[in-house]
Amino acid sequence: MSKMVGDNFADGIMALPSFPVVLVTVDQNIMTAAAFHFYSFNPASVMVGIKPDKYTHGLIQEKGEFGINIPTVDMLDKVQICGSLSGKNENKYAKAGLTPKRSNKIDSFIIAECPPVNLECKVVHRIEYEGSHSWFIGEIQQVHLAVNYVRDQALMFWLGQFRAVGGHLIEGADNSELFTVSFRGSEA
Amino acid sequence: MSKMVGDNFADGIMALPSFPVVLVTVDQNIMTAAAFHFYSFNPASVMVGIKPDKYTHGLIQEKGEFGINIPTVDMLDKVQICGSLSGKNENKYAKAGLTPKRSNKIDSFIIAECPPVNLECKVVHRIEYEGSHSWFIGEIQQVHLAVNYVRDQALMFWLGQFRAVGGHLIEGADNSELFTVSFRGSEA
Repeated sequence: MSKMVGDNFADGIMALPSFPVVLVTVDQNIMTAAAFHFYSFNPASVMVGIKPDKYTHGLIQEKGEFGINIPTVDMLDKVQICGSLSGKNENKYAKAGLTPKRSNKIDSFIIAECPPVNLECKVVHRIEYEGSHSWFIGEIQQVHLAVNYVRDQALMFWLGQFRAVGGHLIEGADNSELFTVSFRGSEA
Repeated sequence: MSKMVGDNFADGIMALPSFPVVLVTVDQNIMTAAAFHFYSFNPASVMVGIKPDKYTHGLIQEKGEFGINIPTVDMLDKVQICGSLSGKNENKYAKAGLTPKRSNKIDSFIIAECPPVNLECKVVHRIEYEGSHSWFIGEIQQVHLAVNYVRDQALMFWLGQFRAVGGHLIEGADNSELFTVSFRGSEA
């Protein structure tokens, strides 16, 4: 297959396929992010990358915590609103029609409408290497998981394109088999 | 919506939706990884997480470089082969029917059959925070990009499930608009 070869390295970043979109909540603010991944299975932790000029960047440094809220594909309009305003000037919960919900282990709100997953996280490390984004590692303190959780409704994004998550490729790997350990509590 | 709340934090990791699969090449070896993301737009860099007991972990430390090769969904069988063997005992290029190709800026091979994208990267940082995985940040030294590159053929994975990448949600954001800067060279 014919290829272009070059040293425009930003095109190498642009060429990545698609990542899950998350709504990062800190204090009373919300930020849309695709710069998100797990960091470690044990201790269970995740990481989020934030440009230093964003309002949320200062909030995370100040509060030392964040919530990860996984939206569904039908929340695209709300995700776009949260991604297009600055929380410095606007209340994104009000603008996007989202409901702040008290967390159990952190002070920041989580989002009531994010059906599948909320994670309450405490910042344990900021990655000490310069770049366009600061990456904060957060250790999970509490997990909220929909009883009927499925991955199939996730909202994906990479530069320029929102996408749905694609279908399974291998039969037999259904969602009910993913979680092996029972949760201790429950809520309506 | 009814939710379970708990402190089985690994379920919070399990609940993440889906990430792009990449084939990480170091020296003459290949590793399948979903623990992969960009790190910075400028300088353009990516990061990959590897468990310390993996053969590739020692190779990356020794060589200080890696290739990122993005497979397509029709390469699922090859990706699974590379994910199920250890390069300590097997030649994965031979086992998976993949062709090693000389890189331009690093010594490690890249994979000729990975049609959309190969990135040649030099390790610039290892994230200094303990966890199940070591994350290596690699600065992009060279980009190989298919002339007819599209994101739609990407292969996705998260624990337990291989998936296709989903369709666009917003009209007008087609692939041809993603790359704005022309490449300097070309090859057949």
